[in-house]
Amino acid sequence: MTEIPQTMTAVLQKGDGYSGKATGPQIDDAADWLELGEVPVPQPGPGQVLVKMRMSSVNPSDQHFIKGEYGQPRIKGAPAGFEGCGDVVAAGDGAEKLVGQRVAYVVTEPTSGAWAEYAVTNASACIPLRPEISDEDGAAQIVNPMTAMAMVDIARQEGDAFIVSAATSQLGKLMCALGRDLGLKPIAFVRRENAVDIVRKAGAAEVLVTSDPEALKKFAAISAELKPRVFLDAVSDQMSEQIFTLMPKGARWVSYGKLSPELPKLTQMGQLIFMSKRIEGFWLTQWIMTTPPQDQGRVVAEVQARFADGRWKTDVAAHLPLRDVVSGLASALQKPDGKVMITP
Amino acid sequence: MTEIPQTMTAVLQKGDGYSGKATGPQIDDAADWLELGEVPVPQPGPGQVLVKMRMSSVNPSDQHFIKGEYGQPRIKGAPAGFEGCGDVVAAGDGAEKLVGQRVAYVVTEPTSGAWAEYAVTNASACIPLRPEISDEDGAAQIVNPMTAMAMVDIARQEGDAFIVSAATSQLGKLMCALGRDLGLKPIAFVRRENAVDIVRKAGAAEVLVTSDPEALKKFAAISAELKPRVFLDAVSDQMSEQIFTLMPKGARWVSYGKLSPELPKLTQMGQLIFMSKRIEGFWLTQWIMTTPPQDQGRVVAEVQARFADGRWKTDVAAHLPLRDVVSGLASALQKPDGKVMITP
Repeated sequence: MTEIPQTMTAVLQKGDGYSGKATGPQIDDAADWLELGEVPVPQPGPGQVLVKMRMSSVNPSDQHFIKGEYGQPRIKGAPAGFEGCGDVVAAGDGAEKLVGQRVAYVVTEPTSGAWAEYAVTNASACIPLRPEISDEDGAAQIVNPMTAMAMVDIARQEGDAFIVSAATSQLGKLMCALGRDLGLKPIAFVRRENAVDIVRKAGAAEVLVTSDPEALKKFAAISAELKPRVFLDAVSDQMSEQIFTLMPKGARWVSYGKLSPELPKLTQMGQLIFMSKRIEGFWLTQWIMTTPPQDQGRVVAEVQARFADGRWKTDVAAHLPLRDVVSGLASALQKPDGKVMITP
Repeated sequence: MTEIPQTMTAVLQKGDGYSGKATGPQIDDAADWLELGEVPVPQPGPGQVLVKMRMSSVNPSDQHFIKGEYGQPRIKGAPAGFEGCGDVVAAGDGAEKLVGQRVAYVVTEPTSGAWAEYAVTNASACIPLRPEISDEDGAAQIVNPMTAMAMVDIARQEGDAFIVSAATSQLGKLMCALGRDLGLKPIAFVRRENAVDIVRKAGAAEVLVTSDPEALKKFAAISAELKPRVFLDAVSDQMSEQIFTLMPKGARWVSYGKLSPELPKLTQMGQLIFMSKRIEGFWLTQWIMTTPPQDQGRVVAEVQARFADGRWKTDVAAHLPLRDVVSGLASALQKPDGKVMITP
């Protein structure tokens, strides 16, 4: 086993706590929020492991988080990054059996982060990877796929059709594919006309373009026919609200992101009252805290099977070495239709 | 038994279907929506009764309905009015045992209405009244009291404290009284400083005045201490949204009315995502359709016991004979702190 150094290179958070703002995930200059640094390699406690980075992903939740607009507070000087893939090189009591394994993981310690050469996390937050899974798929194995599985499961309980906004995102495409595979009818909203084929190929039964002035009219007809009862929404703007008002009785608007800074107005409160509609949120962290381990295990196995046999794959827009994250993240995030991956 | 005439005096709807608007319950001139007329006395079908009017109430739901802004469409030329108290003077097959009884009722036939000398309704929508219940209490026995019981029951399942807006309304006061009697802590919002004592006496543990510039700051402190998880809201404006954002994790904003025409903006979508909050509605009609009859029976008995022993009473602001409704309703509704009652 390679020797573990005393210090490591890491991308560190400059902000502390919450910003109190809600400006969306847009990063104009990563140097506003992040800086490169050399910090001590963390030590795994009981039940924890030390993971040596192979690759880490950039999720919208990371973007919200480093700006102080996520569901948990930042710690100034701690490494950023929720999710990655790497090799377990050390372990605390009770976690020894993971040593030497390549794992997908999310960080569970607020003082640790995946955008660093080493990260500490709970053994329970690690998924040993089959050899046929690439590092790219491993680095995006948990946050998006588990969210997709959990949310499509919510949709499935309410009927055949469901709506996905920002459907060109990695998560959006996963949900379309999963919906199609389950025999459901995903109705996708995308921003650009040239994304229609991508999303249809991914699995969407219907695709609507938000910039089309007729989009809502077209959706009204689709809604009347397919009766989608769940709207899995990453955008949460006025267009989202308008989509919600066109959904049938009993509809649920499930927001899991706020890509748009626009604050939606509720134009038809009466629909909540008379049509039993409701507005709620979804957060994977909450799902993990409230879903029994055996159900989570089933979801994990299904996710990995999908990546292993090629039904799912992670599209990568750019690879960024750790030392280039601060200078290069903003422009890398501009590239469409794929994830930004961070390498050592 | 008195002979039943061929025709009757009734207050008839001028509008048809839905207006497509959401302007709130405000009535500037009832002649915009209603006209006095002489129409045939309706015939009870199987399972139905004919009720001769003693007194009928004016609820906010009536105001929404006659303006075409309620959860069911208007029928032009049909009598208005959802709720009343009267004597059963005829019955269809299977409903004969109600004949001769004084009952509280809601109308179940869209072609019938309580603001008329006679109304037809299902026997299952009639509650025989104990002699000690006044006609005033009988005429307001169902819509408000059942709504209060059902909504406070929702609140009770989530904790001790709950919030009531527009707490000077008859329904608001019922919910405060019920909450206090159950050992809960109702937090009331009222518009006017001089309503504070009325609502506190009714049962509110805390009273806040929406026009007080410090109201939200004061509420934030109360919310942090009492942790109200349910907001029973008849107003549904921006202030309501602000109250919701100050509630703790897991909070439910339950809208049951739209007294304000203001459209609330959702300023903290992240609270739905990260704090498991949600926005929903309550409609008594839906509750009646989805709640088992035995549970409803329990609620009915409890409601009548509360009116019979004086724990609840209906405050009356004005009595209006049928022939004066069109000309006098708007000004009668201006009177604070009580219901408008309609008499033959």
